[in-house]
Amino acid sequence: MIHPEHIEKHFTASEMVRDIVIGMADGLTVPFALAAGLSGAVEATQIIITAGLAEVAAGSIAMGLGGYLAAKTDAEHYASEKYREEREVVELPEVEAAEVAEVFRGYGLPDDQIEKIVDSLRKDPVKWVDFMMKFELGLEAPDPKRARTSAFTIAVSYIVGGMVPLTPYFFAATARQGLMISAAVTLLALLVFGYIKGRYTTSHPFRSAWQTVVVGGLAATAAFTIAKLFG
Amino acid sequence: MIHPEHIEKHFTASEMVRDIVIGMADGLTVPFALAAGLSGAVEATQIIITAGLAEVAAGSIAMGLGGYLAAKTDAEHYASEKYREEREVVELPEVEAAEVAEVFRGYGLPDDQIEKIVDSLRKDPVKWVDFMMKFELGLEAPDPKRARTSAFTIAVSYIVGGMVPLTPYFFAATARQGLMISAAVTLLALLVFGYIKGRYTTSHPFRSAWQTVVVGGLAATAAFTIAKLFG
Repeated sequence: MIHPEHIEKHFTASEMVRDIVIGMADGLTVPFALAAGLSGAVEATQIIITAGLAEVAAGSIAMGLGGYLAAKTDAEHYASEKYREEREVVELPEVEAAEVAEVFRGYGLPDDQIEKIVDSLRKDPVKWVDFMMKFELGLEAPDPKRARTSAFTIAVSYIVGGMVPLTPYFFAATARQGLMISAAVTLLALLVFGYIKGRYTTSHPFRSAWQTVVVGGLAATAAFTIAKLFG
Repeated sequence: MIHPEHIEKHFTASEMVRDIVIGMADGLTVPFALAAGLSGAVEATQIIITAGLAEVAAGSIAMGLGGYLAAKTDAEHYASEKYREEREVVELPEVEAAEVAEVFRGYGLPDDQIEKIVDSLRKDPVKWVDFMMKFELGLEAPDPKRARTSAFTIAVSYIVGGMVPLTPYFFAATARQGLMISAAVTLLALLVFGYIKGRYTTSHPFRSAWQTVVVGGLAATAAFTIAKLFG
């Protein structure tokens, strides 16, 4: 058994988590940094809120729709490579057979065994193509529903993330006050987010937590400096 | 032969191209949309330039450093999974042997052949682990230099992309005039970028071109609408 529950978990959880991480990491960081940057250059919270919300709208669409198109492109790439392999096992079976043999030679299998494997695969062209897709090209059949789910997850995560640093400015009297509350709230959110992300993706959740905070802090510092220079 | 030059090209070109595409797609789109959005809400090009540059600074750091950490995490994930497989082939060789057999059973190989393959692999634990990494888990050994290159490529592409829509505002007399030139220049850049991206990643470069323009246009429209409502 290939531990189906393990693989299942690996695939679905990690792709969904990855999309949330992609959207939320940028959603927490970029609008926070933009708002922080503008706080160093303008007085009115109104402008910061306007710019921040415009960024969240633009960023969520760019990332979500971008993710959608990228997933669609992956699916097409898979289909076109598969079509090519399907033609090749018919038109150039000797070349393809040699490619299979090469894969196994790399793992130290003796030639007489390799020959038998190749013969077995040649008897079933459908499985032969599947084999070439996975073992020669390293491509997995993409989930057709994934593009839409992925786009939606990334966009929503970006919006949710982006509202965390912007909300304090709605209630702040001055840009400076907004920045203070926004920085406190966002750094806390980045810590929690980095920790949870780390729990899913590494064995070092605390390191992940401070790394996420450092990225957000650096982005905000760069934006603040640039805005001070040009504002 | 597995056409080494073909695989080589596939891997290096596509990872570099993918990083440029990731950085430039968002760099062209988000600063353009943010600047366009603010043009609907404020008069002074100064504020638009400040916000745009702050966004480019924040976005390039968030994406570049985010990409760096993601690549590092992938490398660690690979190392920890490899360590687990290395332990398992020693501690649970029967389970691992059954997993190898299961992989080949899926491709319709007869049991007596599978047995011989498993025996061959068991003789060389290093290759056996390599085999499990690729064939059971579908993981490729990551390039250790990739994290840094990837971060740098994404960040620079974001900055280059982001300066395209912002530059017109430096020379425009009013926000409205800046928006007109920025929109014209950026839509043209998105067309060219989408076409070139499409040449590398799909067989439909013209479709890729207009899709890229649609994403940029939608993001800008959303940002403009939001900024009008709140500005």
